[in-house]
Amino acid sequence: MSDDVVYLNPPGTCPAQGLYSHAARVRGGTTYYIAGQLAVGADGEVVGADDFDRQFAQVFSNLGAVLKGLGCDFNDVAKFTTYLVHSQDIERFMRARAALFPKLFKSELYPPNTLLIIDRLVKEPFVIEVEAVVSAPDA
Amino acid sequence: MSDDVVYLNPPGTCPAQGLYSHAARVRGGTTYYIAGQLAVGADGEVVGADDFDRQFAQVFSNLGAVLKGLGCDFNDVAKFTTYLVHSQDIERFMRARAALFPKLFKSELYPPNTLLIIDRLVKEPFVIEVEAVVSAPDA
Amino acid sequence: MSDDVVYLNPPGTCPAQGLYSHAARVRGGTTYYIAGQLAVGADGEVVGADDFDRQFAQVFSNLGAVLKGLGCDFNDVAKFTTYLVHSQDIERFMRARAALFPKLFKSELYPPNTLLIIDRLVKEPFVIEVEAVVSAPDA
Repeated sequence: MSDDVVYLNPPGTCPAQGLYSHAARVRGGTTYYIAGQLAVGADGEVVGADDFDRQFAQVFSNLGAVLKGLGCDFNDVAKFTTYLVHSQDIERFMRARAALFPKLFKSELYPPNTLLIIDRLVKEPFVIEVEAVVSAPDA
Repeated sequence: MSDDVVYLNPPGTCPAQGLYSHAARVRGGTTYYIAGQLAVGADGEVVGADDFDRQFAQVFSNLGAVLKGLGCDFNDVAKFTTYLVHSQDIERFMRARAALFPKLFKSELYPPNTLLIIDRLVKEPFVIEVEAVVSAPDA
Repeated sequence: MSDDVVYLNPPGTCPAQGLYSHAARVRGGTTYYIAGQLAVGADGEVVGADDFDRQFAQVFSNLGAVLKGLGCDFNDVAKFTTYLVHSQDIERFMRARAALFPKLFKSELYPPNTLLIIDRLVKEPFVIEVEAVVSAPDA
C-alpha cells in the first residue's frame, strides 16, 4: 500500500458523475500498467455469461489477484478505465461499485475512472472490462 | 507550466490526422491522471444537450478547472483521449479544436490525442468526453 | 532498448486472453505517450481500405517509425491499447499479431494490451488503431 497515490477533487471543479475522483496525483515510485481485466476463470473460460453482477465480481477479483501478485492493492490504483458493452448495465455497475469499493479502498475518495460504452470485447459474452494504471513505492 | 512535457513528431513518421502530435516526452515530475471530463455544470447537470459545440466548450472548461485546481495548465498535458458518440460530430470537433487550442497552448504543437467514436457515455445526452494524463514539476 | 520495462503474469492470475501480459512494470526513466497510430501512408492518405491485414501492417510500421524516431523500440512499450472497428477482424488481429510479435519483441512475453471494439475511427475506412505508452532510460 502506497502513500504516493492521492485522489483529488480540486476546488472549483464540477461534481463527479459517480464514485470517482477527478484526478490522482502520483509522485515517483514504480508504475504498473495493467491490461484490461475480464470475467475469466482460472481455466481461462468466461465466467458469468449473461450475468453482469457475476462478471463485475470476477473482473475485480481478477484485478485484485494481479495487484496482489505485484505486491500492491487497490489503494495503489491511479486510474481505472471501465468498458461496458450494454448501456443497460450502467445502473448495475453503479450499484455494484457502491457496494464493493468501500471494502477495497481505505479512503472515502476513489480513483479517477472513465466509463465508456463500446461495441464489444474480445469474446462476445464479456460485458465488462476494467484496466488500471497503478503506482507503488519502489521495492 | 512545466518544461518537462515536450510534444514530438519525429522525422520519418507519417502526417498526423489532426491537431495532435505523435508523441509527448515526460521526464520525471509528478503525474496526474484525470478522469474523463464531461459537459457537466457546477450543479452536476448536463450542459448543452443536443449541442455539440456547447458540450465541447464545457468539457474543456471543466478540464481547465481541474488543471487549475492542480496548479497546472494545458501545457502540462501529456496525452488526451477524446471520445465522441456521433461520427457526425468529428468535423465539428476538428473545427472547435482548431479554434480553441491556439488559446490554450503556448506551443504550435499540441498533445498526442487518440480520437475514438464509441456507443455512449455515462448519461445519454453526453456526446463528448476528454480524459488526460498530465505531468508537472514536483511541487 | 531498455531493461526498465518488465512484462509480468503474476502467480495466481487467470490466463490472458491473447498474446499479452497482465502487467508491465516501469521504474523511473522517460515516459513517452504515443497517439493512436492509424494506417496512414507518408502522403497522409489511408493505406489498405477494406484490407485489415494491410492496415495492421501499416499501423505497426507507423508505430515502429515513431518508436525509432524517439530512439526506442518495441521492447520499450509498457502498454498497448488496440481499437478495432469490426468484431469480424478479431481473429485476423490475433493471427497477424502472432505472426508479427516474435519479430518485434526480444522476450516471449508481450506488453499488456486492452482490445476494444468500437464504432469508428477518425476516418471511415480505418479499421484498426493502436496507441502505446513507452518507457525508455533517461537519455
